[in-house]
Amino acid sequence: MSDTHHNTEPLLLREDDAGVTTLTLNRPRQYNALSDELIDELQAALDTLAAEPETRVIVLAGSGKAFCAGHDLKQMRAQPERGYYEALFQRCGRIMTTIMAQPQPVIARVHGIATAAGCQLVAACDLAVAADCATFAVSGINVGLFCSTPGVALARNIGRKRALEMLLTGEFIDAAQAQAEGLINRVVPIDRLDVEIYRLAKAIRDKSPLAIRTGKAMFYRQLEMGAADAYAYAAGVMAGNMLAEDAAEGIDAFPQRRPPEWKGR
Amino acid sequence: MSDTHHNTEPLLLREDDAGVTTLTLNRPRQYNALSDELIDELQAALDTLAAEPETRVIVLAGSGKAFCAGHDLKQMRAQPERGYYEALFQRCGRIMTTIMAQPQPVIARVHGIATAAGCQLVAACDLAVAADCATFAVSGINVGLFCSTPGVALARNIGRKRALEMLLTGEFIDAAQAQAEGLINRVVPIDRLDVEIYRLAKAIRDKSPLAIRTGKAMFYRQLEMGAADAYAYAAGVMAGNMLAEDAAEGIDAFPQRRPPEWKGR
Amino acid sequence: MSDTHHNTEPLLLREDDAGVTTLTLNRPRQYNALSDELIDELQAALDTLAAEPETRVIVLAGSGKAFCAGHDLKQMRAQPERGYYEALFQRCGRIMTTIMAQPQPVIARVHGIATAAGCQLVAACDLAVAADCATFAVSGINVGLFCSTPGVALARNIGRKRALEMLLTGEFIDAAQAQAEGLINRVVPIDRLDVEIYRLAKAIRDKSPLAIRTGKAMFYRQLEMGAADAYAYAAGVMAGNMLAEDAAEGIDAFPQRRPPEWKGR
Repeated sequence: MSDTHHNTEPLLLREDDAGVTTLTLNRPRQYNALSDELIDELQAALDTLAAEPETRVIVLAGSGKAFCAGHDLKQMRAQPERGYYEALFQRCGRIMTTIMAQPQPVIARVHGIATAAGCQLVAACDLAVAADCATFAVSGINVGLFCSTPGVALARNIGRKRALEMLLTGEFIDAAQAQAEGLINRVVPIDRLDVEIYRLAKAIRDKSPLAIRTGKAMFYRQLEMGAADAYAYAAGVMAGNMLAEDAAEGIDAFPQRRPPEWKGR
Repeated sequence: MSDTHHNTEPLLLREDDAGVTTLTLNRPRQYNALSDELIDELQAALDTLAAEPETRVIVLAGSGKAFCAGHDLKQMRAQPERGYYEALFQRCGRIMTTIMAQPQPVIARVHGIATAAGCQLVAACDLAVAADCATFAVSGINVGLFCSTPGVALARNIGRKRALEMLLTGEFIDAAQAQAEGLINRVVPIDRLDVEIYRLAKAIRDKSPLAIRTGKAMFYRQLEMGAADAYAYAAGVMAGNMLAEDAAEGIDAFPQRRPPEWKGR
Repeated sequence: MSDTHHNTEPLLLREDDAGVTTLTLNRPRQYNALSDELIDELQAALDTLAAEPETRVIVLAGSGKAFCAGHDLKQMRAQPERGYYEALFQRCGRIMTTIMAQPQPVIARVHGIATAAGCQLVAACDLAVAADCATFAVSGINVGLFCSTPGVALARNIGRKRALEMLLTGEFIDAAQAQAEGLINRVVPIDRLDVEIYRLAKAIRDKSPLAIRTGKAMFYRQLEMGAADAYAYAAGVMAGNMLAEDAAEGIDAFPQRRPPEWKGR
């Protein structure tokens, strides 16, 4: 789809490198604001990647100065209809549940500001690495729009008092604080951001894709269970994992001090 | 109601200042222990404020040396009946759920010790700012009374191992640790406590009261949902918020670099 | 039961000291790997202790260099049957829910590595104290086996992004990081580990065993409730606690500045 500015650049860039696929939000002049069209492209790209077993890790990045500044408020104001807004926020929320259901781990690469739905994207990713100059806010409250869907993601990453402070004040936190709270995994200087992303992506890429896929799905599902049910469910998943060829190969390779050869089954 | 000591001072002080209402627990000689009468007054004050749209933020404070030392054990021991205790703890728990349901954000101003149900009050508030000399404990276990209802609030603020350590040992933590755990938002020297409370209250007071009210209610409700349900619910709330006059005003004011004029609808 | 190596040493050591019982995993040459037999012995010991009111606190320790290296992969690979694996992981999960249901608080004493189901044990204990040389990982992913059941325990101790990073990469964290995340309560130099364990165990042992037992059970149960239900439930538990002799004794002893004499009822 074309951008609202009829830009000829694609809205979403894709780059594949040895099992690691990087998706880059590419509306740099709009701080990668999530227009209708960009939301659709991101959803389509995630759906396509879900069916590509050769992609083992997904990195989500932004072009230009910002990671992502949230929704495209200008586009939103131009269509003041409940049906449009309902559909927009539902589609945005679907990106978040898609990331959780994605067979590949998704790592946010946060090099600049991540605000409102941009902060939600960071929170919804499985992992996140940030440059020390990155900043985070759920700033919709400054324009009279409480960041409700970002709050869903945020409250599942950080403590409720911290989440409420960000949501009620719209104030920014820096990368160090975001890491201390649990919103991101690592903070590095900007010139080491890609090295750190690569290190993390490679560590996951070299694992059994079967174990990663079944484990990630198990993880999110058990989070919503009581403890006894979660242990019972996880025990069944783990028994299935033990019967897979990859577990046999991995356990046999270990004492032989050789790298395992994953079959992905 | 009068205090058990027939004190002529009111048990709960109220001060209104430009949209920020401060409620001060006022049993300083009893370290603001939550007597039957004080619980009733606090409940009544919150209920009254819920119907006053001109109050935009509530600050909960304590007079004298302590923030709040919990229940009034002397009064409790004088009426050893199950029906009385059941009603007392249910009414105390109702204060906590009332704070969560309150249309205005409630900020705890913690200048001294906060123990047992006093620590519960801090945990139940939306936000909390403490002086660096404040200390926190759920110390009922020292007198053979496990802080069960405080544990409900505490476990929704901090990690379970930290919560259990406090509940099982009754030991104090200081303000710095309480902040690191997530029980409070900010720690400042005591002589800057009111400045920091004012800064935070003002930041929230100057937002759209409609967005604050609907957002706060949404936040607590979605916390108890699975992720998919929470995103769907929050999307609906956000769509409604976008249709409000305040969101239109806020989004239009932003590029015009003027402060928005909230209508609260 | 005998070990697979027909070792004459018991697999699990028990030591009782004035109300504090230490259970020590005793397969030092296998880094205390949880063989079928050790799982059964640990379950039996916990069940036995549940019926012994004179035991007030349980410490879980490991002999030799490691705390616990998880399951016995060699034994597991020798029986590649779904029924066996299902039963094994269910029994392992039952240890974790038993610890939560145990009337006595259980403290992990972590002096060395705690990996996979060993890390799960640490996470499942009510409290944990570690030496500064202890390290933690859920490393099954390195052999193609995602640590699903350990993930259940881990995700209930630390933030989801941190838990996912450990589960997806298998990488170790040190004791300081484990404490910052919430996986353990305290970190001390190894030569002060027993002093700190004793201090914590003694603080709990000297409390009313009735209040500790009912409070611990209440704590885990309310964690799985919505806030309103949790407050109502906890209020009922606390009313019952107030009617117990121990609460009357504790509250009466306090102003008399004498230590309370607990009856445990």
